[in-house]
Amino acid sequence: MIKHALSVTRADDFAQWYQTVIAEADMAEESGVRGCMVMRPWGYGIWERIQRLMDERIRGLGYDNTYFPLFIPLSYFEKEAEHVEGFAKEMAVVTHHRLIPDGKGGLIPDPAAKLEEPLIVRPTSETVIGAAFARWIQSWRDLPVQINQWANVVRWEMRTRMFLRTAEFLWQEGHAAYATVDQAKVETAKALELYRSFAEECVAMPVIAGEKPENERFPGAVETWSIEAMMQDGKALQAGTSHYLGTHFAEAQSIRYQNDAGQFDFCHTISWGLSTRMVGGLIMTHGDDDGLRVPPRLAPWQIVIVPMLRDNDEDAALIDYCQGIRDELARLSAFGEPVRVLLDLKATKAQTKRWGWVKKGAPIVIEVGGRDMAGGNVSQIRRDRLYREDGKLDSAVVAKGDCVSGAVSLLEEIQQGLYAAAKARLDGNIRDDVTDMAGLAAHFADSVDKPGWVLAQWSKPSGAGLDKVEEQLKALKLTLRNVPRDSAPADGACIFTGAPAVERVLIARAY
Amino acid sequence: MIKHALSVTRADDFAQWYQTVIAEADMAEESGVRGCMVMRPWGYGIWERIQRLMDERIRGLGYDNTYFPLFIPLSYFEKEAEHVEGFAKEMAVVTHHRLIPDGKGGLIPDPAAKLEEPLIVRPTSETVIGAAFARWIQSWRDLPVQINQWANVVRWEMRTRMFLRTAEFLWQEGHAAYATVDQAKVETAKALELYRSFAEECVAMPVIAGEKPENERFPGAVETWSIEAMMQDGKALQAGTSHYLGTHFAEAQSIRYQNDAGQFDFCHTISWGLSTRMVGGLIMTHGDDDGLRVPPRLAPWQIVIVPMLRDNDEDAALIDYCQGIRDELARLSAFGEPVRVLLDLKATKAQTKRWGWVKKGAPIVIEVGGRDMAGGNVSQIRRDRLYREDGKLDSAVVAKGDCVSGAVSLLEEIQQGLYAAAKARLDGNIRDDVTDMAGLAAHFADSVDKPGWVLAQWSKPSGAGLDKVEEQLKALKLTLRNVPRDSAPADGACIFTGAPAVERVLIARAY
Repeated sequence: MIKHALSVTRADDFAQWYQTVIAEADMAEESGVRGCMVMRPWGYGIWERIQRLMDERIRGLGYDNTYFPLFIPLSYFEKEAEHVEGFAKEMAVVTHHRLIPDGKGGLIPDPAAKLEEPLIVRPTSETVIGAAFARWIQSWRDLPVQINQWANVVRWEMRTRMFLRTAEFLWQEGHAAYATVDQAKVETAKALELYRSFAEECVAMPVIAGEKPENERFPGAVETWSIEAMMQDGKALQAGTSHYLGTHFAEAQSIRYQNDAGQFDFCHTISWGLSTRMVGGLIMTHGDDDGLRVPPRLAPWQIVIVPMLRDNDEDAALIDYCQGIRDELARLSAFGEPVRVLLDLKATKAQTKRWGWVKKGAPIVIEVGGRDMAGGNVSQIRRDRLYREDGKLDSAVVAKGDCVSGAVSLLEEIQQGLYAAAKARLDGNIRDDVTDMAGLAAHFADSVDKPGWVLAQWSKPSGAGLDKVEEQLKALKLTLRNVPRDSAPADGACIFTGAPAVERVLIARAY
Repeated sequence: MIKHALSVTRADDFAQWYQTVIAEADMAEESGVRGCMVMRPWGYGIWERIQRLMDERIRGLGYDNTYFPLFIPLSYFEKEAEHVEGFAKEMAVVTHHRLIPDGKGGLIPDPAAKLEEPLIVRPTSETVIGAAFARWIQSWRDLPVQINQWANVVRWEMRTRMFLRTAEFLWQEGHAAYATVDQAKVETAKALELYRSFAEECVAMPVIAGEKPENERFPGAVETWSIEAMMQDGKALQAGTSHYLGTHFAEAQSIRYQNDAGQFDFCHTISWGLSTRMVGGLIMTHGDDDGLRVPPRLAPWQIVIVPMLRDNDEDAALIDYCQGIRDELARLSAFGEPVRVLLDLKATKAQTKRWGWVKKGAPIVIEVGGRDMAGGNVSQIRRDRLYREDGKLDSAVVAKGDCVSGAVSLLEEIQQGLYAAAKARLDGNIRDDVTDMAGLAAHFADSVDKPGWVLAQWSKPSGAGLDKVEEQLKALKLTLRNVPRDSAPADGACIFTGAPAVERVLIARAY
């Protein structure tokens, strides 16, 4: 029986385990501000890695980075009706621009400094970026316009959960305008494909890419596409979305271009976003009962060296030996970047450091004691396989030279291994043989441990028909996730109506 | 007589010239949101370069990146009295978290969704980060804590100016806590030195580093240090500040550690910030009557290749030739990074592109026409020396191989040259021979063209005495900038009081 590093296991209480990983890995904490978290260096460092790898890919699509205002005048939201409807509900509203003493030692908003028009803290930037597009675009020669921004946004969520759903979160939002519907749809698909490949190659998180049903569309969108990932409790996490907005925003904001015949046409716009929610997905995909496991491509430190210092004369030589290893490793390249290696010299016990890095999920931890040094060795722990078959910690004594020469392939192996395990879990937990509501209810019964997803055939009802489907699913605490881009054509009856099915849709519990 | 690319010259109207550079170089524009700007790719790209180079240096000091909430509860500001006093005045206040229809087709803040405690959009983060420090720090073993964040902040400025003073701006803020006053002051000085070296080495902007007089201190600080740069109109720009906060914030927020004797002591905290204002400083340091000149280390593109396409059969060969040059240049390293080279294939006339890149200030523009290609040449323009002595554009025909082999040293030469010119201007425009108020008034008389700075001896009055000095200076539209770290000891009388001087202080008009 292994005694794991965390006080709560995934099997015990998945939700509590999630919070415990975040706390024990020093990733983030509650801030004292409702619904907002403090991202500590390890959690924020993973986000910075996501930013760096995503940013390269976004530039590769031909997008330029920009920065738009945090505040959006209220009137901007009144222009696109569906967008208002979807977003108007819960947003942070700035109404005053000054504080004054309240006469009792405190401060109050100055009634004389009330804004004529309230400002909204951006929940997303279609409206303010659309206004700029209208200024920038005159002729077909100005198209396409493709811009991205890395920014904070605020949605006043009632129930928050660190990384997964916070009032303020960080994200990238891509926005683009094109001359034709075809081009806009192609580019919407490219953004989705960027998310899929990024999730799978960098986060080692297999996903299903597909189109959301109409009831799950972004407010104002004509089509919304998503990537959906399966968490270890079987629930789905929407990890990125890409929207074809048609000419809705263009019409509301006069984003027009003069075509080569001299006539004015509305642009077709798209937008797409991926947020710090991805960090939550990473935790629930790769975490285990000893804490987080970070895929090497996203690990702020890929290899951590812990010298077993004893506060005696031998320490200097040990540090020297470790620095030599650090320098050799730092000269290597993995995944096209220099290897990120840390020599941890903090004034803490080696044992505490080891378990600290295990809980943080550094891919490789190298411990070096006097005996290791004397033999020209190191003791190496790989985070993806922490224990031997007998349940003991698998710390392997490896010759220093082998440790260095094998480091890159070991990092690659860990990255691949994490992906393969998650992929096997996803593939093994989607059933396509559920054909009626009774079967669906049985599959997702509360007594079933970690029910996976159901890929069901359906007749794609819309309007009132779809509302009815949603209600039926809600009673089972289920949602429609997406219609997978790559699934087989329908050949049966709709699980909801019995009518001939037209496609297959994923059904799951979701975050 | 040279016909310059801008419609306004620096001599005509410096303020108007500044706005013109920003518009013509496509750096930024008004957003429609009061006091907030849209940073377009070229302006934001320069900020991203600043971020990347600063970030390395900040990590080099041992700081970790983190992210703290955008919103700070009002009560946090009520704790540190001087800090409130300094900041409470003009801040964006969030009072509601929901909008509802107003019944007339518009939206209003929902009276039922009024926040119990208003939230302030952070003007700076000492209070919310201090609260985290109080949680994180228990013993001397936890010290030092050194964190940095890249974030947006809001100060409700009445008169705004793009990059220099905007309601929302982007910055980095470093925050740290130490056990002793000595350590905290040493680290305050290290941050200041980081700013000085960054400004001079990367922005090619010479600065004077020194301590601000007490009336110019950050609210709540014990000492505030700054770097001050001289703009081409002779005015001073404060381009970065570093504050020793004593135990003020620690006492207000209970940031305490148990020392090795087991007793609780308050920590000594520091903070330091540098913002998008630096981009405004770059413009006013290096811009000329043809637009911006970006120092190569900060240029998003260091070399731009413009093929002279003619929409005919030869275009393909020309593009091929240019791609070859682009690939060779991109394999080079300058300033320890890969050379950033763009082949501009936009559907615009070559002439328009050339002047576009001149106005944006790309350090080297390479034009390639059919004749250049036939001779194995390129036509090369260096942005720092645009015209020949006869006033013609200095476009030099250079063999392709020489263009490539000389590119790195040319970039280094341009970087050095921009610095040297700015340094000569700074050094040549600080007078230390002004000894009385009449002389000061004459030096800064409105009739004087671009008066430089005065380094005056003073007796360092404080309290009411300093208030009086401030008043005298205000009448001349002057301010005290800082007491230079490296200036000669005083040996004369105070310019304000006639009393024996104790040090030298910089006096200037300022942004």
